[in-house]
Amino acid sequence: MENFRLQIPTDIRFGKDRLEELPDAIAPFGKKILLTYGGGSIKQSGLYDRVLSLLNERDFTVVELSGIAPNPKIDSVRQGAALIRQHELDVILAVGGGSVIDASKVIAAAAFYDGDAWDLVLDSSKVGKALPIVDILTLAATGTEMNRGAVISNPETNEKLGTGGWELIPRVSFLDPTLTYTVPRWQTAAGAADILSHLFEQYFNRTEGVDLQDNIAEGLMKTVFKHGPIALQTPDDYTARANLLWASTLALNGLVERGRQGGWTCHAIEHELSAFYDITHGIGLAILTPRWMKHCLDTDASTHAKFAAYGRNVWGINGDNDEDVARQAVERTYQFFKEDMAIPMTLPEVGIVSKELVSRMSELAVHHGDLSGNVFVPLSVQDVESIIEASFAPMTAF
Amino acid sequence: MENFRLQIPTDIRFGKDRLEELPDAIAPFGKKILLTYGGGSIKQSGLYDRVLSLLNERDFTVVELSGIAPNPKIDSVRQGAALIRQHELDVILAVGGGSVIDASKVIAAAAFYDGDAWDLVLDSSKVGKALPIVDILTLAATGTEMNRGAVISNPETNEKLGTGGWELIPRVSFLDPTLTYTVPRWQTAAGAADILSHLFEQYFNRTEGVDLQDNIAEGLMKTVFKHGPIALQTPDDYTARANLLWASTLALNGLVERGRQGGWTCHAIEHELSAFYDITHGIGLAILTPRWMKHCLDTDASTHAKFAAYGRNVWGINGDNDEDVARQAVERTYQFFKEDMAIPMTLPEVGIVSKELVSRMSELAVHHGDLSGNVFVPLSVQDVESIIEASFAPMTAF
Repeated sequence: MENFRLQIPTDIRFGKDRLEELPDAIAPFGKKILLTYGGGSIKQSGLYDRVLSLLNERDFTVVELSGIAPNPKIDSVRQGAALIRQHELDVILAVGGGSVIDASKVIAAAAFYDGDAWDLVLDSSKVGKALPIVDILTLAATGTEMNRGAVISNPETNEKLGTGGWELIPRVSFLDPTLTYTVPRWQTAAGAADILSHLFEQYFNRTEGVDLQDNIAEGLMKTVFKHGPIALQTPDDYTARANLLWASTLALNGLVERGRQGGWTCHAIEHELSAFYDITHGIGLAILTPRWMKHCLDTDASTHAKFAAYGRNVWGINGDNDEDVARQAVERTYQFFKEDMAIPMTLPEVGIVSKELVSRMSELAVHHGDLSGNVFVPLSVQDVESIIEASFAPMTAF
Repeated sequence: MENFRLQIPTDIRFGKDRLEELPDAIAPFGKKILLTYGGGSIKQSGLYDRVLSLLNERDFTVVELSGIAPNPKIDSVRQGAALIRQHELDVILAVGGGSVIDASKVIAAAAFYDGDAWDLVLDSSKVGKALPIVDILTLAATGTEMNRGAVISNPETNEKLGTGGWELIPRVSFLDPTLTYTVPRWQTAAGAADILSHLFEQYFNRTEGVDLQDNIAEGLMKTVFKHGPIALQTPDDYTARANLLWASTLALNGLVERGRQGGWTCHAIEHELSAFYDITHGIGLAILTPRWMKHCLDTDASTHAKFAAYGRNVWGINGDNDEDVARQAVERTYQFFKEDMAIPMTLPEVGIVSKELVSRMSELAVHHGDLSGNVFVPLSVQDVESIIEASFAPMTAF
């Protein structure tokens, strides 16, 4: 186990019927709020009216930034930072999913940064002081509600990159499973895939002696494998939504990651798909992940034991032969996404029909994600190309 | 899953060779330190000299409170609070195991409390403002290094009671696995038993829909069952010590408990044993726990399923019959303590040879622990008596 530092001061308010705590939760940070949100879903659900009504009962000033898109764009960040300066705002209230919170994090830092906000994405060391953030999460997926990371896209340059800073950790996060009842099937499935991918990225790792972290990761995977399909079938199943929501938070708040070293893989490849084609992040991850798993098994026998542990401990697959168990586990993972979560498991099904950008995306993934370096299985540009190529047709061998 | 609030701001500094960070970690809280510790072990190990040397390189003022005993006594708390007032100290640096940190927590609050410190133990609502606490943990056991609880004993009244408050959560905790290399076998075993008991107390619970929390609990149990015996056999095995140390922290920082409701059982009974006989807390828990488990299985068939889940998921026991799997799991638990951890598993072996206080301790356990109320299996005074009585002889049936 490697040395680590962990400090996550986020005040988690988990559960239903507690939004009346919101004004008291915001008040310590100031009176003048930037309210950030996405499209119309929080207006359709009534959440927008509820939040404004709660804030209007007290003497808060609210300035709005709406229209923050999935794969949030740097232009939204620039707009938010300008509003904070113009109105001298004190605190950001982010209402929405991971995209709204990620954009709000970089807005919070950009308000104190003199240059262009994109600099903060290109170089996280430029992230310094930031406005405090309170959020109301409406989607179980990214884990941003209890960590310091953010991912922002720049459509002009076809870049989708991660940044972060200690000041960006949300101060208070409201996690109400009932607010996720209205999440569409597609987004519920994509969110579950995102959670699982976060766990895979951390779990398939070479650091020795991290049984504790691996055991927690396996426990969170089992939680998602059980409750993801229930949430898809019965959107208002409180227990399923609660387990998914809390799993999304714990999957990426440091519990699974701290004590390890080593980078991620599938996220880096998916970020290129999203940067060029703006596909749903979690769906891209679901498509890529089993192909990446098979690539690991096919090219590096030293990975068989860890994939076998995943198969035995998470899927309960019996058998003494590591490779057999491992390949069964990959097949289960693929079938989970395809059958249980109804995810279209090929790129053409999500609108990527041409292979003309495969080489370019592969080069950029290796470059941005440092995939030839310290990851579970280092990948060349050709390796990434083969993983993306394999994602154009259904998987038939595992 | 029940609603919950979780906020754990403790800054964890985990790993070896990082104690030079100590002065910078304390500095934000002030210059005048109350250094608290126990007997001579930190002097024998050299840790005391190292800490003082680091502090003396900077202009800290250090006042010492030594002699904090296992099952820490209220007199130490009173002494510490008096020192803080007398010298107008800013911050407590606790160096030791759970007892030193628990005493320091109540000292931190007592310094701001006008009445007798024992009031704060009898009534946690009287715990208000407190001095900040930084700690260097030397024993994997209680989890106090990342939570708001503390347990204090009063030998005059034979009481050992828990208290707590949000202000008591340590600000910075140094967790260095190498500092636990010199922990004796007895204390290593007791610490592992304490961690497991914390997990059992939370896991054997009636709240529905907490798969996530149960999965994390099972993962932490597996961690202790694997690494406890390694640490006993090879005291300087870094991986084993690291896994035990981090497991002790995560077992009781809210991750497993939040989202549930319902009280604890074995701790309440053990607190009476310690209050009257001053035995080692973790050893008392190891002795009582399998008897309590058997009592649950014998008297309440509705518990079979949860104990069977424990057997299957933690011990990998196969079988379709819940009761069979459950009883095998109890036997495994007993044998783990007895064989793998070399714990003497009867009360006479730890010096409790007379049964004269069994009734009195049972009455007090039910009273102090509210054991007839909302616990996994409610216990009458007679039930507790039978569990303690059964602890006088080796277990032969499970």
